[in-house]
Amino acid sequence: MLPKGFKVGGICSGLSKKKRKKDLALFISDVPASTACIFTQNTVKAAPVLLDIERLKVGNKFLGVIANSGCANACTGVKGLEDAEYICSVCENIFGLDSLSLLCASTGVIGQYLNISKDAFPEKIKLLRYSIGASLKNEEEAILAIMTTDTFIKKVEKEVIVEGGKIRIWGCAKGAGMIHPNLHGFHATMLSFILTDADIENTTLQEILEESADKSFNCVSIDGDTSTNDTVIVLANGQSGVGKLSKEGLSIFVNAFDELTLDLAKSVAEDGEGATKFIEIEVKNAKTKKDAKLIASTIATSPLFKAAMFGSDANWGRVIAAAGRTEVDFDISKVSIYIGDIHTFKDGFALKFSEGDAKKSLSKKEIKVIMDLNIGSESSKYYTCDFSYDYIRINGDYRS
Amino acid sequence: MLPKGFKVGGICSGLSKKKRKKDLALFISDVPASTACIFTQNTVKAAPVLLDIERLKVGNKFLGVIANSGCANACTGVKGLEDAEYICSVCENIFGLDSLSLLCASTGVIGQYLNISKDAFPEKIKLLRYSIGASLKNEEEAILAIMTTDTFIKKVEKEVIVEGGKIRIWGCAKGAGMIHPNLHGFHATMLSFILTDADIENTTLQEILEESADKSFNCVSIDGDTSTNDTVIVLANGQSGVGKLSKEGLSIFVNAFDELTLDLAKSVAEDGEGATKFIEIEVKNAKTKKDAKLIASTIATSPLFKAAMFGSDANWGRVIAAAGRTEVDFDISKVSIYIGDIHTFKDGFALKFSEGDAKKSLSKKEIKVIMDLNIGSESSKYYTCDFSYDYIRINGDYRS
Repeated sequence: MLPKGFKVGGICSGLSKKKRKKDLALFISDVPASTACIFTQNTVKAAPVLLDIERLKVGNKFLGVIANSGCANACTGVKGLEDAEYICSVCENIFGLDSLSLLCASTGVIGQYLNISKDAFPEKIKLLRYSIGASLKNEEEAILAIMTTDTFIKKVEKEVIVEGGKIRIWGCAKGAGMIHPNLHGFHATMLSFILTDADIENTTLQEILEESADKSFNCVSIDGDTSTNDTVIVLANGQSGVGKLSKEGLSIFVNAFDELTLDLAKSVAEDGEGATKFIEIEVKNAKTKKDAKLIASTIATSPLFKAAMFGSDANWGRVIAAAGRTEVDFDISKVSIYIGDIHTFKDGFALKFSEGDAKKSLSKKEIKVIMDLNIGSESSKYYTCDFSYDYIRINGDYRS
Repeated sequence: MLPKGFKVGGICSGLSKKKRKKDLALFISDVPASTACIFTQNTVKAAPVLLDIERLKVGNKFLGVIANSGCANACTGVKGLEDAEYICSVCENIFGLDSLSLLCASTGVIGQYLNISKDAFPEKIKLLRYSIGASLKNEEEAILAIMTTDTFIKKVEKEVIVEGGKIRIWGCAKGAGMIHPNLHGFHATMLSFILTDADIENTTLQEILEESADKSFNCVSIDGDTSTNDTVIVLANGQSGVGKLSKEGLSIFVNAFDELTLDLAKSVAEDGEGATKFIEIEVKNAKTKKDAKLIASTIATSPLFKAAMFGSDANWGRVIAAAGRTEVDFDISKVSIYIGDIHTFKDGFALKFSEGDAKKSLSKKEIKVIMDLNIGSESSKYYTCDFSYDYIRINGDYRS
């Protein structure tokens, strides 16, 4: 159920997908909402990202986000920027919103222009205005309209009681291929839109988002690639009726928000292109958190490791090799490695285990890998998926 | 043909491969040879690498290298080191060589011990001593004995006339999966042994090797993973009869040596696990060589790009996205991208091209990709292969 004062919807706009598939979503607040954003750190940024960055320089409260899928509107120069502005302004006009009150986002193929028909497009948006609302059908349509190679809908909802009142947080995401965090600030190649009726001012909301992303979206890798379009936008419209949150109330909100971003991030890893398994990698007892995260991310992006997981092969040698090629100093004679339910490596040596048990454990849909360095007390988790034949099939033929 | 004063051979020693497959190679010089080496920068180093590093601390002339395949002798602790020493000492004894005069190398599965039978092993080495020689059959046997998932023999020979005399350089390599340079000094996950009858002293030879590797072995990536065992060893025994090289002679030698290492490195890329295509990536007109190399290597390790090459898809968006996620600053409005024979992108915009022509061009066995940044004058090349179904098949089931 959407937080109070929000409407969402999705339509077949013809902008970026063919064959009557939903390709345009609108997430809209009744009143101007505090807004927090994180964008791709890729040097090459798509037009919608550039437009959002410009708009955030002059305003910090927005009424909503319009997002399309199928065309990334990236590497499209000045025309791409004009197209993004046009779409925002048509929506602003038809919905009777102030100008510059919408942000936008795109996902899809790079280097193509949006297919804008200046006759037909405003009519589509009028239809959207009539149909938009808070019904479950509209939520599903909005999420479908941002999906590309995703195989399932990614939606997470939280409801918390704060100071006697109810606050809702609602989030959706699209992910699939080309997902990897960029170590400079946020990065996970995905779109995520998070709506809440909490009353939180901008700078606090931005801090909450950045800290939360660092434990969730920033800890997901599908294939180490990053996109030109990654965007997370949070709108907090304060319509819950609870009013400004106390310190304690804020802490309850942040916990729920962190759970929501982690669940979204995990669902993105679970739905990596061609994925057959969800993999959680935990590096334990490192000297520093940074060390733990660097090793976890290096394991998570090792194609050899990911192919071994696809093959249900408890190949701890690939875990060691990946960890070893980071610059992190560790003592192999203290390391333990668990793959699935199997303790494979201890104090620098291979342990004997039944290959049958290992195959059985690694044939599960969710695999947990633990590398315990035993030289400190800091830990970090990273989420990824296996590398399958389908990853190659999907990505060998993406544009066509 | 081997350089003067070298013998090579390979046998089925039973040390590390089953089913009577060749698994032990010996490369040996009649006289102590100047020796240059580069090893993996992986934190976790295999026993033979650790042993070589120790031996290089006390000596700089060696008589040869003994190398086994099928078992990496990595993560094997003190016993692994003792095993490596044992193998060297048996060979030294039976061949009547000084102790500590051999180096060693291993490649194969991590975490297993060499299968040493102290009765049978010396007998095998005696057989090797009787059969070893400079015949072509022995060369082939030696190279077969260092191969793992390689699908073809990698051997390069050069002959140059220097100061009226003939100098030979002979090199072999094994590669396949888990190949990626480590940016700290040398790294390509492979074994390569280079023999020459040139007369070059140690420090010069080491410099030649390091500079050469930086343009060859260090510019190859199969999957971004690195191993615990990477080793390149060069032996220069001075038996050509030409004597000490003049400055000019040395320059002729270095040119031939560079050609040899580049050819070996390219053949390693060509034979990446499951590879169907060899891909050369050139980044042109960058501000610095470092920038050019970083972008080229990032493209070469992008699974999305490599899957697109497998699918013969001229997907320049993946080239842009990979380049963009480096920290290198470039101006997209100046960039040109060529994939195969197709100019796909110019001055920030997609060019129209025939998808039929693109498919045809990218269906070739060798693909050249050029990204021209047009903001400087430095260039760098990188070599890789595509990501195919077979990569997943091979690596999903490596240990078994």
